[in-house]
Amino acid sequence: MTTSAPIRFRVLSLNCWGIRYLSKNCKERFVLIGDLLNQEQLDIALLQEVWCEKDFLFLKKKLSSIYPYSHYFKSGFIGSGLAVFSRHQFHDAFLYRYSLNGYPYMAQHGDWFGGKAVGKVLLNINGLKIHVFVTHLHAEYCREKDSYLPHRVVQAWELQQFIRHTSAAADVVILGGDLNMHPDDLGTRLLRNYTGLQDSFSEAANFDGCEEGHTHISENPFTNTDNLVPFGGGIRIDYILFKGSGEVDVSCESLSTTKGPVPGHPFPYSDHEALTAEFLFTPTTKGNRCSERQSVNEARTEVKVGLHCAERMRHTAARTGIMGLVLLVLELAIAAVPLFALGAEQPFPKASFYLLGALCFAILLSTLLLYIFYSMEVKALQGTEDQMRLALSKSLVTYSILTVTAVHLVDIRTSSVFENEI
Amino acid sequence: MTTSAPIRFRVLSLNCWGIRYLSKNCKERFVLIGDLLNQEQLDIALLQEVWCEKDFLFLKKKLSSIYPYSHYFKSGFIGSGLAVFSRHQFHDAFLYRYSLNGYPYMAQHGDWFGGKAVGKVLLNINGLKIHVFVTHLHAEYCREKDSYLPHRVVQAWELQQFIRHTSAAADVVILGGDLNMHPDDLGTRLLRNYTGLQDSFSEAANFDGCEEGHTHISENPFTNTDNLVPFGGGIRIDYILFKGSGEVDVSCESLSTTKGPVPGHPFPYSDHEALTAEFLFTPTTKGNRCSERQSVNEARTEVKVGLHCAERMRHTAARTGIMGLVLLVLELAIAAVPLFALGAEQPFPKASFYLLGALCFAILLSTLLLYIFYSMEVKALQGTEDQMRLALSKSLVTYSILTVTAVHLVDIRTSSVFENEI
Repeated sequence: MTTSAPIRFRVLSLNCWGIRYLSKNCKERFVLIGDLLNQEQLDIALLQEVWCEKDFLFLKKKLSSIYPYSHYFKSGFIGSGLAVFSRHQFHDAFLYRYSLNGYPYMAQHGDWFGGKAVGKVLLNINGLKIHVFVTHLHAEYCREKDSYLPHRVVQAWELQQFIRHTSAAADVVILGGDLNMHPDDLGTRLLRNYTGLQDSFSEAANFDGCEEGHTHISENPFTNTDNLVPFGGGIRIDYILFKGSGEVDVSCESLSTTKGPVPGHPFPYSDHEALTAEFLFTPTTKGNRCSERQSVNEARTEVKVGLHCAERMRHTAARTGIMGLVLLVLELAIAAVPLFALGAEQPFPKASFYLLGALCFAILLSTLLLYIFYSMEVKALQGTEDQMRLALSKSLVTYSILTVTAVHLVDIRTSSVFENEI
Repeated sequence: MTTSAPIRFRVLSLNCWGIRYLSKNCKERFVLIGDLLNQEQLDIALLQEVWCEKDFLFLKKKLSSIYPYSHYFKSGFIGSGLAVFSRHQFHDAFLYRYSLNGYPYMAQHGDWFGGKAVGKVLLNINGLKIHVFVTHLHAEYCREKDSYLPHRVVQAWELQQFIRHTSAAADVVILGGDLNMHPDDLGTRLLRNYTGLQDSFSEAANFDGCEEGHTHISENPFTNTDNLVPFGGGIRIDYILFKGSGEVDVSCESLSTTKGPVPGHPFPYSDHEALTAEFLFTPTTKGNRCSERQSVNEARTEVKVGLHCAERMRHTAARTGIMGLVLLVLELAIAAVPLFALGAEQPFPKASFYLLGALCFAILLSTLLLYIFYSMEVKALQGTEDQMRLALSKSLVTYSILTVTAVHLVDIRTSSVFENEI
């Protein structure tokens, strides 16, 4: 760290909803997003759901004079959708793909194919090491019956681990993205408590934007309003989080969101609102620590619930596979009988024989693939649970009283699902 | 950092070859490995290829009095095979799964199912922050025609990234494992140059073990000696690497390897030899920096070669899929003709019809799966190549002359494969 003068730093985060041929007004919106970024005079823009590389390249060209540095994070089948545009040079880039991210056969949700991840770029501004993270977690399709909750909790856990482990040398940490979690949701608390990151919405000295900082609002013509009715017409699921270090004090001077339609156009930039935060980095000697490890107990319960489901699904896949195998053996046995009783008539019509054979084969193949997939899910969930247990055992010494209380609280919920399990 | 007295630290690394029912004398060998670990009075043991959780649990029980802390890293379908046993408490654990790791249809090689990864545990000994990494990279099945080389280079790149990004606050870094790479192989150089890790074999004050530190020797009864003939009967592919920091000086006092059969038994611990290193950590003010960024150019070429192959394979999958589709349409068209020419005889025997239909369906399904898989491979290779380009562009300013020379050297190799590509 070589600077001592305060530095102003402007960050934008936007989920661009860039699904070519499916998202409405996709091409026009990317033109408008490019214009917005050029107007906003940012230091860095963190974009999500730039699913098509052509759209990234379009933005790269359009923004090249103001933002000469850019990075597109590639992952999974379609991509991670994460793109970063910066006025400052990147000194490094690193990607961590979450170990769980939905199911390949839920093609209508599509998350699995995206290879969701957290991307990191390193900036060095006047000697300040600024670690900037961008991410997009698994979508929430039904809040009441959210089968993806364990996956999102694992993602939030891995996100906090990745940020914590990779930002030890950082003077400033910034995280922007679509977390697909409300401010008080388990994953958000887990992330904030473990990393000590602060929420620019609650810390900003000035705020200008949608009511309560909502980034997904019912006024948005691209939004399915039914999902938002229980929340009074809007939810906050996009965030810019930040923290300083022992050597740099970070304050959030202002936060703003876009508010619906782009001025002079009938539609907004995306189905999400964009967030823009302005920070002030002031070299200091004040420390910045925050540690509340309670939420990990709750998270562990969610992961265990997911583990329970995944094990059950794997069991079902195995059972169905065995049934397919038995059916195949039975068919072959029936077909083989006339071969031994030489000269007898074949009682099995050939067409049915092949059709049934193909069916058995299809069952076997699909259950095998499902079995493999669920086994990987079980492994990833178990791995996260192990790490959470370790985190708990570590904090047990310091927070023994706190933890005992928490374990009791969690036990009330856990006991109904996991009998005889510690 | 609160200590000032030197600390002795003993590390063991062993690839246990623990494939139940396939590896020879598997159960007996795990008993012997447990005995070895108990005798060796280590600080930490880094094991690879503990594929079966039961074997891990067996060791955990057997070692509990001397090594009360253990961690088993779960990943992929079978697991990562990585296990750590320690005398010291773990303060954190983190796993990074490599984005590429072989092909699911190469079941005889099995690497894909293992979900290979790098695991990390954090120790704190007398105030010293010790970051210990354990890993196992993709096997090399044929050195002359190594189709997995791009995957292994991507793994080496991700390994160095993970170590570098997560060990900024470390006083000491230790990496143990089976890299499946010779000491001068591209991946080994990439890893060492980028992280500044030193090789305990070349740095040890005393060495006692197999000739030239070989860990995979032809005398080993479990080893396929044919592969080792060109290398004079042994290769060194297992490593314990280390580095200190500005505040701690690390010296390697001794390194030893096991030498074939376990005393009193007709077979060795594994198909690899175990490595044991003893380090001395001395608090100091000396820095430890080493930076030679040349190898990244070479690595980028390998990744590009892999990318070229993956793109070609994806193209082949797409073409075969289209052929399957055309065949299906053709079949349906032929079958449909008599339906229109009412009363005419059906020229297509039903059995053949269903068989051909099933075949087309199987072709379509398998090429679709392959297409998805190759697309993911292309994404991961492209992502790594982008990051390597970034790393090069960053060092371009400082090492402009060096890089220009290197790019020319690489161009000689690249130009034959990639015409018209920058």
